Amino acid sequence: MTEGPIDFWFTMGSTYSYLSVMRLDGVERQSGILFRWRPFHLLLILQEMKHVPFADKPAKMRYMWRDLERRAAIYGLPVKVPAPYPAKQSVMANLVAIVGMGEGWGANFVRAAYRRWFQEGEETGSEPNLSASLRDVGQDPARVLPLANAPAANERLLAETEEARQLGIFGSPTFVVGEELFWGDDRLDDAINFYRAGQARR
Amino acid sequence: MTEGPIDFWFTMGSTYSYLSVMRLDGVERQSGILFRWRPFHLLLILQEMKHVPFADKPAKMRYMWRDLERRAAIYGLPVKVPAPYPAKQSVMANLVAIVGMGEGWGANFVRAAYRRWFQEGEETGSEPNLSASLRDVGQDPARVLPLANAPAANERLLAETEEARQLGIFGSPTFVVGEELFWGDDRLDDAINFYRAGQARR
Repeated sequence: MTEGPIDFWFTMGSTYSYLSVMRLDGVERQSGILFRWRPFHLLLILQEMKHVPFADKPAKMRYMWRDLERRAAIYGLPVKVPAPYPAKQSVMANLVAIVGMGEGWGANFVRAAYRRWFQEGEETGSEPNLSASLRDVGQDPARVLPLANAPAANERLLAETEEARQLGIFGSPTFVVGEELFWGDDRLDDAINFYRAGQARR
Repeated sequence: MTEGPIDFWFTMGSTYSYLSVMRLDGVERQSGILFRWRPFHLLLILQEMKHVPFADKPAKMRYMWRDLERRAAIYGLPVKVPAPYPAKQSVMANLVAIVGMGEGWGANFVRAAYRRWFQEGEETGSEPNLSASLRDVGQDPARVLPLANAPAANERLLAETEEARQLGIFGSPTFVVGEELFWGDDRLDDAINFYRAGQARR
């Protein structure tokens, strides 16, 4: 896990997080700022808020796909919309990501899973996406999936989710600089500027 | 009412619309693109969606005020947050805006009412905001308020709201270029770029 001054909180069922997941590597190189990838299970927080982002709101969902398509074009990212949504087993993708963050291949797995979800139409968290994304990053599903299903991964995911809740996070992606929250891929620049202003004040 | 190639749909109970309302004049001058101001009553659409943007979501509401404060600072706009919210009589502000759009002082009234709401803490749609904002723009409340309460203004507001619904609008502000929707003050640049790309293709 990269130790970075900006925390990148994300959940793998989130559509807009595709944009951040795919461009963060380039942003990191260009800005010289490191991001720490923090998977959490947003669904638990949304359920407490009784909040369903899109599934029961057709106008908002239609807009989301179109907006995502336009934004991907701005970043030069390929995208096939609508992607399968909602991802019914996104918790599994989060659990694998948690295992991967501990072992050092987490960000690569997340990118592979998002690529398959938004470019190949393979629902994230389900097969074949899970195993194929693991193989894409040189990991053996027969070794990793049992680890993802073990209590330790679940406890770690719940602890991360609890930390996200304590920070006041209610959406994905959220960038956190100190105690300052920046929600949405479209607030990444604001987060970077806020971080830099803080550095300049020191 | 300015006839513009980009429609600026807004509802006067919306918090983020403060940013667009206050900066659109400058954006218009700088871009040379005209915006047509279209007040509508978003609350009717949200009620159908059974969607409450912030009032029952404390984490999201806290974030919204902070984000609004930061974004206002980026634009150099003064802001006192939290402003009174929700604005219980926002329909009255929308009705006065509708009358004003027909008579040519609508945008000025909207700016005055938002300034009082977000800089002076006077709830929009209620007194003293309503009458004071009218006087700010040289209008007599004793003449205008009866017009805003008359059936014609209400019919016009409902017709505009119905057009917004048909367009797929579910939030404020929304910028519309042809049939393309751009939701949020933070999508204003995207709307302008989309419009320009369309012009270049002609």
